Amino acid sequence: MNKVDHKDCLGALLPIRDALDAIHGKWKLLIYIAVSNGNNRFREIERSIPGISSKVLAKELKELEEHQLIKRTVYDATPALVEYTVTEYSKSLEVVLQALNTWGTNHRKKIMGKR
Amino acid sequence: MNKVDHKDCLGALLPIRDALDAIHGKWKLLIYIAVSNGNNRFREIERSIPGISSKVLAKELKELEEHQLIKRTVYDATPALVEYTVTEYSKSLEVVLQALNTWGTNHRKKIMGKR
Repeated sequence: MNKVDHKDCLGALLPIRDALDAIHGKWKLLIYIAVSNGNNRFREIERSIPGISSKVLAKELKELEEHQLIKRTVYDATPALVEYTVTEYSKSLEVVLQALNTWGTNHRKKIMGKR
Repeated sequence: MNKVDHKDCLGALLPIRDALDAIHGKWKLLIYIAVSNGNNRFREIERSIPGISSKVLAKELKELEEHQLIKRTVYDATPALVEYTVTEYSKSLEVVLQALNTWGTNHRKKIMGKR
């Protein structure tokens, strides 16, 4: 087996790293699923995820917005009405989440089966 | 859309979390690919990944071993000879890495295209 040097290694990993960065972390997927399940207001999302602080939720929503997985809409009302929805683009994640879900389910059986 | 409560959310995410825990982090995939590319001795792996310390490499190899993605073989020699190889089981990751790679490649274009 030929030895591939570090640069090729890193280059090959970049897209995988990009994908993991968009969805990994303690809260991102929880927030994404909470919004896709009908929690569209900030307080609703916050209440639906025990343990998350407003500060962390605001930061994670911002990042999910930058990754174009969540859309923030401000309605012209007094006070302003802000709603979060999942984007059409975010549905492209389905394949990734399904692959992770299938592998994770088998992995748990394989590892738990040993302990 | 019905509002799903937190417990169902968490339950649904568990397998995905298990999968992400096995492969995420700065070094795991780099180490996995380095070993699968023919770096089988500790020093070889260490040299092939600039910036990683021996302490971190030892810890990450241990975790990859616990996840049964890497196998550690000790040969009866003086001094003892230790080799790391990827396991047959780890090939099941292929589908996940492929899905992440495809999504990450498109995601980079979509996000970079905007900046």
